[in-house]
Amino acid sequence: MKFSEIGEFGFIESIKKECVTSLKGVIKGIGDDCAVFGPYSGRLLLFTTDMLVEDIHFVRDTITPYQLGWKAIAVNLSDIAAMGGKPLFILISLAIPVEMDVELIQDFYKGMKDICRHYKVDIVGGDTVASPDTLTINVSLIGEVKENEILYRSGARPGDKIFLTGAVGDSSAGLKILKNEISPPDSIGGHFIKAHNEPKPLIETGRIIATSRLASAMIDLSDGLLSDLGHICKESGVGAILFRSKIPLSSQLKSLASIANFNPLDLALSGGEDYVLLLTVPEAKIQDLDLLSKDKRPSPLYLIGEIREQGGIRMVNDDGSVEEIGPRGFNHFLS
Amino acid sequence: MKFSEIGEFGFIESIKKECVTSLKGVIKGIGDDCAVFGPYSGRLLLFTTDMLVEDIHFVRDTITPYQLGWKAIAVNLSDIAAMGGKPLFILISLAIPVEMDVELIQDFYKGMKDICRHYKVDIVGGDTVASPDTLTINVSLIGEVKENEILYRSGARPGDKIFLTGAVGDSSAGLKILKNEISPPDSIGGHFIKAHNEPKPLIETGRIIATSRLASAMIDLSDGLLSDLGHICKESGVGAILFRSKIPLSSQLKSLASIANFNPLDLALSGGEDYVLLLTVPEAKIQDLDLLSKDKRPSPLYLIGEIREQGGIRMVNDDGSVEEIGPRGFNHFLS
Repeated sequence: MKFSEIGEFGFIESIKKECVTSLKGVIKGIGDDCAVFGPYSGRLLLFTTDMLVEDIHFVRDTITPYQLGWKAIAVNLSDIAAMGGKPLFILISLAIPVEMDVELIQDFYKGMKDICRHYKVDIVGGDTVASPDTLTINVSLIGEVKENEILYRSGARPGDKIFLTGAVGDSSAGLKILKNEISPPDSIGGHFIKAHNEPKPLIETGRIIATSRLASAMIDLSDGLLSDLGHICKESGVGAILFRSKIPLSSQLKSLASIANFNPLDLALSGGEDYVLLLTVPEAKIQDLDLLSKDKRPSPLYLIGEIREQGGIRMVNDDGSVEEIGPRGFNHFLS
Repeated sequence: MKFSEIGEFGFIESIKKECVTSLKGVIKGIGDDCAVFGPYSGRLLLFTTDMLVEDIHFVRDTITPYQLGWKAIAVNLSDIAAMGGKPLFILISLAIPVEMDVELIQDFYKGMKDICRHYKVDIVGGDTVASPDTLTINVSLIGEVKENEILYRSGARPGDKIFLTGAVGDSSAGLKILKNEISPPDSIGGHFIKAHNEPKPLIETGRIIATSRLASAMIDLSDGLLSDLGHICKESGVGAILFRSKIPLSSQLKSLASIANFNPLDLALSGGEDYVLLLTVPEAKIQDLDLLSKDKRPSPLYLIGEIREQGGIRMVNDDGSVEEIGPRGFNHFLS
């Protein structure tokens, strides 16, 4: 069987067994945004990694080296945000085509150093190697979070409300613009490209949610809303409903969709790389959430659905009809 | 300027500045086998990463998937060994050509799981992505060591004796055999190929050296004896002499060299990927080293030279003459 047939998630399932055998303080292995171990003096350490491959995750023509450096770090920081943690230390591995200009890689490093300084993360080492032709970037990140603040994918329970911390679909529209699949009016094109090339990891929002201790589960949207909500459902052993009219879309996406004649909800549900946070909140705590002072409440916060006992993800349409929409989203191997 | 002109180490120098800015407990950033941070309850955490790229670090025809999995982990474990630490947790990033057989990658994982089980390390996560054509592997590893046991590259002082924990050059001979540059007799070819494809990280030896607290500095030989001793000299601000007749060579390498008519010392000095440990021991502690009981003394242990105040690395020939041999070794970008 080929990789293109089994897919990323199928493959991960096939190798998951016997990865953790030593009982050395692993609290969470494969299956969440970060691995979790410890505790060390009441703190848990978070450990995550992401690989970006040229011509799969990015095309050199459509992102500046500076943006690429920024984004490579941002997607990892977002995994720490998803568990309510603070990022600490980064290792950067680069496989660099031998004929690449040093200046480009220095710009790339400038992007990485700027985002690290902004989020108070240290670059503590890495590995720099040659590559025959493809630029490959791997970032590994350690973060920390207090034991009583950590948020897993597995904590969602039937009845919990589902929230998003921002609009979805803009990054995916940016990718379509970069691939010349959509032609936007000049006035709004930049908005989407920026959403795609310069994502902002929601570290502070994640910390606010974690310290409020009102959420039961959290994840960041990297694969796409349906796919990532699917991860929450799978790890929590639950299903979910979404309210079609409540999915937050930017005004720019609505304009673009009407000009370019597509359904913005397709991008919002399956687009990926939004890097907003999806969280679930038990019904009993919704009132507490509303009572939080403005600086302690994540903002914006959109109620988009509800966790249900019945498996699968269903969409409640505006007319009250319900349709099964199941997990969909970006998968590197399956088209 | 192209990467092929500036080289790996030149590039690292050029980006080293402003990587660590937050003062969050980074004890060692770029410039040792692992980054070091903490302490957490008296323990320091070690953080290291290595990237292996197809057709640069390995060729699929000359290593089995099982061996490749083993080796990808082994080279990282060796970095933990070099600081006297215990390995704990691993993240594995894989960029997999879409048309690759799943079975091959499962064999690759078997090699990784076997070495992890052997060294009591847990695979706690990673990232699995598609690649246009090149198989790329990145391993990130966290280990730990007590504050008073850690060994850096920077601790060597003039007068310290230099030791190796094993023979050097076999892995490099193995690579030459795999590349058909040397044809060995059937009886000894396997020895070299195994040395190259299945390195044994010296975790236990590193722990014995660390707990004895007799060494002043340590490194593992990945780039080659001269290059890695050069790292010790640079980080410690010293130079070194080596005794030509004392460089440990396996009997197999001596035989192969005489049959295939090459100087085995060339491979021993510059070959790379030996993964034995090089340590320096202050003269005053040499006696204590000799007094250690057999189970507390690393074995074998070869005295090969001495740290000197004068910079550079010099070779003392059998006739007492001395020649400057400077750092040489494997560099991914410079030929």
